[in-house]
Amino acid sequence: MVIIMFEELANIARKVEEKTRIPTYIRSLENILLALTKTDNFWLVVRYSGEPLNLVAESLKQLANNNYVVFDGHRIKLSSKGRAYISELSLGYDTHYCTNCKGRGIIINNLGDDVIREFLEIHGNRPKAIQEYDQGYVSPEVTLARVALIDSYGDLKGRKILILGDDDLVSLAIGLTKKAKEIAVVEIDKRLTDYIEKISSEHGFNIAVYTMDLRHPLPEELLGRFDTFQTDPPETLKALKLFIGRGISALRGERCAGYFGLTRIDASLDKWLEFQRMLTNDFRVVITDIIRDFNEYIDWDYIDQMYGWKVAPVKVMPEGIWFVSSQYRIETLRGFRGFNDPMLDEDIYVDEELASA
Amino acid sequence: MVIIMFEELANIARKVEEKTRIPTYIRSLENILLALTKTDNFWLVVRYSGEPLNLVAESLKQLANNNYVVFDGHRIKLSSKGRAYISELSLGYDTHYCTNCKGRGIIINNLGDDVIREFLEIHGNRPKAIQEYDQGYVSPEVTLARVALIDSYGDLKGRKILILGDDDLVSLAIGLTKKAKEIAVVEIDKRLTDYIEKISSEHGFNIAVYTMDLRHPLPEELLGRFDTFQTDPPETLKALKLFIGRGISALRGERCAGYFGLTRIDASLDKWLEFQRMLTNDFRVVITDIIRDFNEYIDWDYIDQMYGWKVAPVKVMPEGIWFVSSQYRIETLRGFRGFNDPMLDEDIYVDEELASA
Repeated sequence: MVIIMFEELANIARKVEEKTRIPTYIRSLENILLALTKTDNFWLVVRYSGEPLNLVAESLKQLANNNYVVFDGHRIKLSSKGRAYISELSLGYDTHYCTNCKGRGIIINNLGDDVIREFLEIHGNRPKAIQEYDQGYVSPEVTLARVALIDSYGDLKGRKILILGDDDLVSLAIGLTKKAKEIAVVEIDKRLTDYIEKISSEHGFNIAVYTMDLRHPLPEELLGRFDTFQTDPPETLKALKLFIGRGISALRGERCAGYFGLTRIDASLDKWLEFQRMLTNDFRVVITDIIRDFNEYIDWDYIDQMYGWKVAPVKVMPEGIWFVSSQYRIETLRGFRGFNDPMLDEDIYVDEELASA
Repeated sequence: MVIIMFEELANIARKVEEKTRIPTYIRSLENILLALTKTDNFWLVVRYSGEPLNLVAESLKQLANNNYVVFDGHRIKLSSKGRAYISELSLGYDTHYCTNCKGRGIIINNLGDDVIREFLEIHGNRPKAIQEYDQGYVSPEVTLARVALIDSYGDLKGRKILILGDDDLVSLAIGLTKKAKEIAVVEIDKRLTDYIEKISSEHGFNIAVYTMDLRHPLPEELLGRFDTFQTDPPETLKALKLFIGRGISALRGERCAGYFGLTRIDASLDKWLEFQRMLTNDFRVVITDIIRDFNEYIDWDYIDQMYGWKVAPVKVMPEGIWFVSSQYRIETLRGFRGFNDPMLDEDIYVDEELASA
């Protein structure tokens, strides 16, 4: 029985891959079936499966065609056949994430009550995420956790820090800690740079703010200057090359650090591998940390406008935080290289796997 | 003043590198100076600096020669000059690790009281670590946390799991959970395989135990068979190729997982980079997680016999857990390759950076 299903799933995987052009494995389908033991909401299936949204959407349709899952209104459920596959193989998982830090390993308390309270206030008045720039920001708790992470590794105190794209207002959270030597922000959205400049001057953070499109090279005065960068790029390989390459170009030299989020929702593990080769072969930087689901994003208003909504097999809103990404840390070593060439004629937000833009 | 010290530190870094043949940066020395703001115990300086032991040992000698640190009996302290460097640059770090999970992001409670209690009992009677095989095992809490991690990612339930080198008794902890489909252990030390077989038969775990030297190829019946492997290799590139390559060879196919520890105490970040290239270019596997300091090791009896003791600038015992490693998770993708050739004439425990063997 399981052997027949195994062949059937292999066929489904082939069909999904043909349709989506995303590498699809039996394990991808298993991950989706297992996610359905935890939730019946499409968006949470995407989160728990750890598979790309476009792949999950197409797989669910194919799995329904083959009677592994059933659509019950907007709810997605395992059929008895789907349940049989899991139980005959005894598959499953129990999660053991720390409830105190949500699995991040990092807590924000030590940043101090004032920093936390003031940042929540600043965050409360921020401009909303808009689709034009693939925005979608993390919760204020996560922004603070990023700063706590940077501080834990000696990359905050006395350091010059560049934020490339600051939808998450990391620059302002860093300003509140008063630990950095210098803060600069490069951001395309004038609503955001205006807001950051306003808060910065009210609090005396002295943040250098550049309103610019990162497809242009960084200006000379930002190159080879910083100890640390933070960014959260879209997951196309072009955008990754652009954001991380610019960040590395801005670093002062060897043994400086870069922090960024990378999701599996807009990128298959095969794309992750290509990206890791770019990091280690082309940029010649070492990956020191990958913390899963460190970044939790607040739902953005344009969810029913994005590509992922079109392909979703049921049109339903998320029931809880569904968009997550892993937090990477890299460090430059001898022989590292950045990338600061223009990349003007490119649509950096589009590939087969990007669903959240 | 700082500019003069900067040049002096660049000189010290050059000298340390000449002596140790380990890439040495000004940041390496900064990391050591910063560690000295937290501890005066040599072994904890190694831990907190995140730099290779051999590099730290030689750097401390050179830093003392140049009056940045002073040896006060067995205690190592910043001099006023060392302190001035840090304070003029405002360097430092505050740690924000979660106190509940010690920064692992994973807790063991959900494994159940019985599993925890029984494993502690089993662990209490285990054979001690010996130098011959570069042994040094993690605390029982960490072994359980590894199992909880594997369970959280769907790599435990219904899965066939191979442990390559089981100094940490991961196989027995997995046995206690009753979640795996099959457990096998390959281990060179007959004291350990005897112990694992004894406990396994007492508890009915049915663990397949192979007493063998991994420099030999894995036997045919272990190849292409498992869903998950776990190992904790010595950090020479040869040993990493051997242990991880064998592990990958044992995996059933695409999208299977491997877990292993990698320390910075026996490996510079430059060696980490070379190893990450091996993973992504040669083995063609993707790195999904790197969790810093996940693994804490219990001090072994032969600490004053190992190479690191010889080079230590002061002969003093550790005051707290000092040996830590990051936990990696990799996943196989289309086109992955293992390594199962013999590697017989090689001393896999020796290179410039390995200090703990």
